[in-house]
Amino acid sequence: MELYPTIAAVSTPPGKGGIAVIRISGSDALGVADAVFVPAGGKPLSACGARRAVYGRIRRADGETVDTGIAVTYRAPSSFTGEDVAEISCHGGVAVTRAVLGAALEAGASPAGPGEFTRRAFLNGKLTLTEAEAVGLLIDADTESRRTLAAAAAEGRLSAALAPVTESLTDVLAALYAAIDYPEEDVGDEGERAFAGTMEGALARIRALRATFRCGSAVASGLPTVIAGVPNSGKSSLYNLLLGREDAIVTEIPGTTRDVLSAAADFGGVTLLLSDTAGIRESADAVERIGVERARRKLEDAALILFVVDASVPLTAECARLYRAMPAGVPVVTVLNKADRGCALDEEECASFSPAVRLSARTGEGREALYAAVAAAAGADAVDCSRDAVIWDARQDALLGRAEGLLACALEALRRGDPLDAVCTMCESAAAELSGVDGRGVDEAIIEGIFSRFCVGK
Amino acid sequence: MELYPTIAAVSTPPGKGGIAVIRISGSDALGVADAVFVPAGGKPLSACGARRAVYGRIRRADGETVDTGIAVTYRAPSSFTGEDVAEISCHGGVAVTRAVLGAALEAGASPAGPGEFTRRAFLNGKLTLTEAEAVGLLIDADTESRRTLAAAAAEGRLSAALAPVTESLTDVLAALYAAIDYPEEDVGDEGERAFAGTMEGALARIRALRATFRCGSAVASGLPTVIAGVPNSGKSSLYNLLLGREDAIVTEIPGTTRDVLSAAADFGGVTLLLSDTAGIRESADAVERIGVERARRKLEDAALILFVVDASVPLTAECARLYRAMPAGVPVVTVLNKADRGCALDEEECASFSPAVRLSARTGEGREALYAAVAAAAGADAVDCSRDAVIWDARQDALLGRAEGLLACALEALRRGDPLDAVCTMCESAAAELSGVDGRGVDEAIIEGIFSRFCVGK
Repeated sequence: MELYPTIAAVSTPPGKGGIAVIRISGSDALGVADAVFVPAGGKPLSACGARRAVYGRIRRADGETVDTGIAVTYRAPSSFTGEDVAEISCHGGVAVTRAVLGAALEAGASPAGPGEFTRRAFLNGKLTLTEAEAVGLLIDADTESRRTLAAAAAEGRLSAALAPVTESLTDVLAALYAAIDYPEEDVGDEGERAFAGTMEGALARIRALRATFRCGSAVASGLPTVIAGVPNSGKSSLYNLLLGREDAIVTEIPGTTRDVLSAAADFGGVTLLLSDTAGIRESADAVERIGVERARRKLEDAALILFVVDASVPLTAECARLYRAMPAGVPVVTVLNKADRGCALDEEECASFSPAVRLSARTGEGREALYAAVAAAAGADAVDCSRDAVIWDARQDALLGRAEGLLACALEALRRGDPLDAVCTMCESAAAELSGVDGRGVDEAIIEGIFSRFCVGK
Repeated sequence: MELYPTIAAVSTPPGKGGIAVIRISGSDALGVADAVFVPAGGKPLSACGARRAVYGRIRRADGETVDTGIAVTYRAPSSFTGEDVAEISCHGGVAVTRAVLGAALEAGASPAGPGEFTRRAFLNGKLTLTEAEAVGLLIDADTESRRTLAAAAAEGRLSAALAPVTESLTDVLAALYAAIDYPEEDVGDEGERAFAGTMEGALARIRALRATFRCGSAVASGLPTVIAGVPNSGKSSLYNLLLGREDAIVTEIPGTTRDVLSAAADFGGVTLLLSDTAGIRESADAVERIGVERARRKLEDAALILFVVDASVPLTAECARLYRAMPAGVPVVTVLNKADRGCALDEEECASFSPAVRLSARTGEGREALYAAVAAAAGADAVDCSRDAVIWDARQDALLGRAEGLLACALEALRRGDPLDAVCTMCESAAAELSGVDGRGVDEAIIEGIFSRFCVGK
């Protein structure tokens, strides 16, 4: 039995379209492709040369023509998966893609599982684990900020940022091994300073990467955001402003839990997951009765609260009370709304809300200030996802966190004058955690978990 | 201004998937592709040769990399549209496809309208009109019988069947012109018999094609089917049997009118459009009050009624009355249900339902008989959509109908001994109607109407 059988799947999204692509990968990919695809020129597809777009007909085992289309083959290891690959483009209908895939399965391919092509690409060393994770994020991306983050990581920016850190740790380890093996050649203060310098550099890079996590996850996973405020403060107008910004890309995405529709909005360079209007209105009413457990939980579960105050009228005790009732652990940005009608709050009252931005949800005036405040609240003011190496996944952050802790301990031990082999052991562990980020030495179960989140066909 | 500007669209279905394809077509397709696609090898895409799968990055005008992917170019006239074409495969996410298409539009392409690529293929002579219509049907196809019909027509089977008819009419016309121009060379009885023979042959072929319309449209458009019967006759079980046959391919399709969900089932080699269970149950209740206008209209609008009788109990007056109330113009197939419990109807009672099949909706026994009865009712017993040339569209049938009428008149005139130029005029008109089927001499407005039904990207 083959370890990795030849697999096939429809790689384009399901549904109707001009073109669909059926991807076949594995050691017998060309055999399967030859069985289902008959080039118009007469030569078998496998004899047409790699990376040639060949026109022909797609047939079932009974000889019936299922469709006509274009096939392209790629030879191992120069393919997406690193295996032999054939990609057959046919018409993009529901029945026709089913029939073409059916023909490939009939010809001996097995149906590919979720993310199986990308998994093979990783296992064959064509992609690092963070690149593979980025591919998943790229496919899921429904906003421009998510796409920007994912595209950069899929291109290898994070892997490229990790490489020099690993390298400097390897350098330190080599020097430490030498010092341990040849104790007679005392490394001296200068040598230890050099070790410490390299380790400090690595530590600083790891910390810099970890500092991007808050922003990265705010972009990739989105910030559950609740708009709170007393009635008539302008919550709905703010909701519309957030969703309706001309340059905002907005999609309705089904929530993963409770099947609630959330609207994802690009705002402040991050993704805000706004509850749907109904939910917000209901929660807005509910927060008045803030003692109600459900409303409190909704606010506590939020990663960001936009607290709306009608600043065109004198501050009410109700509004001040509601503000004080906001949960302590969640960042709150106050929107002093209806700025187009002037401000009825005195300086002290304004200062009681911090951070706060003056804004008119009706005219949009003050939008940029809110944009900046949201970015700051999400840590996105210090990160440029289109240029910086960014981490976005809890797995990445956890490994880097462990590497950081171990390296900090190693540095401390070195400075304390502990035996070098203790320092070395901690450095080794730090290096192992670090390589896990890009998938080296990672447990099979973790790999399994990552790729099972992909769609079939990728 | 260009008559046909360079156009671009996402040609794969919308949504999430491993791969999406952005298609660019027009005289500047390669220029647009060079602007957005940077091959990894350094050479511009347009210099990489046609039909080569080239790996590279996709960039926006500001230089930012949007994604990485594969590009293939096709040179006019050897492309789907007959124009220069570039197809860029990128990751199949919502934001990424939007970004890649955006880059192509930024580089000078115009957004393609619905069916615009296929329309250009037709206008550039790459496809006949029936082939183009078949492509649309193929993309829409959600059942295997629809796909079979569409795939055969997209491959040109209908066009191939039309060609010899057109040819023989052209032959007759040439001979008639000669006879008219050189009256001194009397064609004689034998010549006229030869004319008549060729015309009869053409007429027979046209009639044979038209005979496939009932089946073709039953497959392509589906037969609105109502399951009727008194309560507890087993309507729901029959509904489940129709949808649940192991080899039936079932999809939930949103109805074009009133947004009612219908279930399309392959049955009897045709597509049955069954109202959803709720609708059927409601109509089933309503047919008891058959006088109710709405229920009557529902039955009259059906193309097929499956009348369910519980044959395991004696025939009730209510059931007989309901059967007699079925609208006269709609084919009714009676299902003598619960055959697994024996038959309580006498021979005469059974004979009063015709056509009828004995069936057990519970066990599935008798399913094949119903399959055959449905096929016969839809005219599918005499047509094999996978082998025969089939017409499926009212437009095709109307043109063939006019050609048939004109040719029959011409034949009659020839036999009556009318002047040859009268015969010739009618033959000319018949030939013109006939060429319209494959799109020659067809009005621009009709072409417009056909392609506007396509999806964008095809």
